[in-house]
Amino acid sequence: MKKRPLILVTNDDGIAAPGIRALIEVMKEIGDVIVVAPDNRQSGKGHAVTIDATLFYNRINIDDQVTEEYSCSGTPVDCIKLAVNEILKKKPDICVSGINHGSNSSVNVIYSGTMSAAVEAGIEGIPAIGFSLCDYSWDADFETIKEHVKTITVNTLKNGLPEGVVLNVNFPKLKKEEIKGIKICRQANARWVEEFDKRTNPQGREYFWLTGKFINSDKGEDTDEWALANGYISIVPVQFDLTAHHAIQTLNTWELND
Amino acid sequence: MKKRPLILVTNDDGIAAPGIRALIEVMKEIGDVIVVAPDNRQSGKGHAVTIDATLFYNRINIDDQVTEEYSCSGTPVDCIKLAVNEILKKKPDICVSGINHGSNSSVNVIYSGTMSAAVEAGIEGIPAIGFSLCDYSWDADFETIKEHVKTITVNTLKNGLPEGVVLNVNFPKLKKEEIKGIKICRQANARWVEEFDKRTNPQGREYFWLTGKFINSDKGEDTDEWALANGYISIVPVQFDLTAHHAIQTLNTWELND
Repeated sequence: MKKRPLILVTNDDGIAAPGIRALIEVMKEIGDVIVVAPDNRQSGKGHAVTIDATLFYNRINIDDQVTEEYSCSGTPVDCIKLAVNEILKKKPDICVSGINHGSNSSVNVIYSGTMSAAVEAGIEGIPAIGFSLCDYSWDADFETIKEHVKTITVNTLKNGLPEGVVLNVNFPKLKKEEIKGIKICRQANARWVEEFDKRTNPQGREYFWLTGKFINSDKGEDTDEWALANGYISIVPVQFDLTAHHAIQTLNTWELND
Repeated sequence: MKKRPLILVTNDDGIAAPGIRALIEVMKEIGDVIVVAPDNRQSGKGHAVTIDATLFYNRINIDDQVTEEYSCSGTPVDCIKLAVNEILKKKPDICVSGINHGSNSSVNVIYSGTMSAAVEAGIEGIPAIGFSLCDYSWDADFETIKEHVKTITVNTLKNGLPEGVVLNVNFPKLKKEEIKGIKICRQANARWVEEFDKRTNPQGREYFWLTGKFINSDKGEDTDEWALANGYISIVPVQFDLTAHHAIQTLNTWELND
């Protein structure tokens, strides 16, 4: 690369989260960094956009870094839209999202604000990567994975991404020397079985907290879940053409126009 | 079908919207209906789930119908999770979502609460359809499309859906006699170009409303956008395995493990 790339950084845990601070540090070694991230926790917001409310953003300064940073009142997807259309003066060379505190493997890609931000950047024609560490703790150790984050980002800048594709990268919670390498994977066919925690409020009304158990019934050794369980970093290429092309022929046999 | 199917109905415009009232009327002709829908507007909420706040639901009665109806404080996806895990006594035979006031064709499928509810039902293993009418008006005319909604639902109950696939059905805003038929389509490669409406609040602070222009640069005649523009109802089979399988081989040529 002749000149330093412009890198847009976001996340869904909020702009002050340790995960995004670690990501910013790595990105500053690669290029010029602009951060546009939610001002509070936006986990599980999926691809939500704010259309029934107003949006604000503020220039802020965290960690006394010289990096240009903006906190935004909206969802991760709002952050990308505001960044690209209002804040940035030119299109970034890449967008990185995360590092998420917790897994975004398999079906979690659909609920994840971190990955939805990357997908939105992809829709805008920007190469994009979502990074997640399989450790939900606020004190998760991001040091061990920084080198890999750099390698994957540099490779993406060098090679580009196929059109309509962004990367979903998940790191196992392991010591540096325990990580066996990187595997390109497919999304495991897994899902959450909800277990609502039912409680009663002081007024006697029932309310619920969403909780659940993650069930992976996919035995394939080419899945992200297999890779993570076996000591590998998983990379799943993710697309936003949701068409089930293989189903079109079947549906064309239905008697819909009789 | 030997016995009347159990039909779960939801939407993202809120339980009192004319679109869901029309959908309920059609479904009562087909089977036993239970409604679990948001208590207010949840448009553009994508696949958001409520994990940082509590959820409530209430048994309610609208239109003096005998139908069992529940309004829920969460997102469309929360409604499906609550319905399946807390409210329903058995798994529904089908889930229908909508009828949305406005298009969910092409890339809108990703932002749509209506379609995310259908996708969530699909993840739970329930055949699911999202219905949308390309008319954003609250007074949109749903009468003209009721017969088609019934045909598509009855066919889905009869034929079943391929595993991991739900249907995204969009209706053009046309008179009954102007609709040419139903086409099975792929999602058009289109996107929104945002145009933020910047304003200043009474305290002098800038804020933004998200607005945008829909750009379809996909010339294909097999897309949902083409079908709708040419007088057809579009059905896109939608999948929630987001893996870009065609990109795995390319990514395996990268030097990530050296």
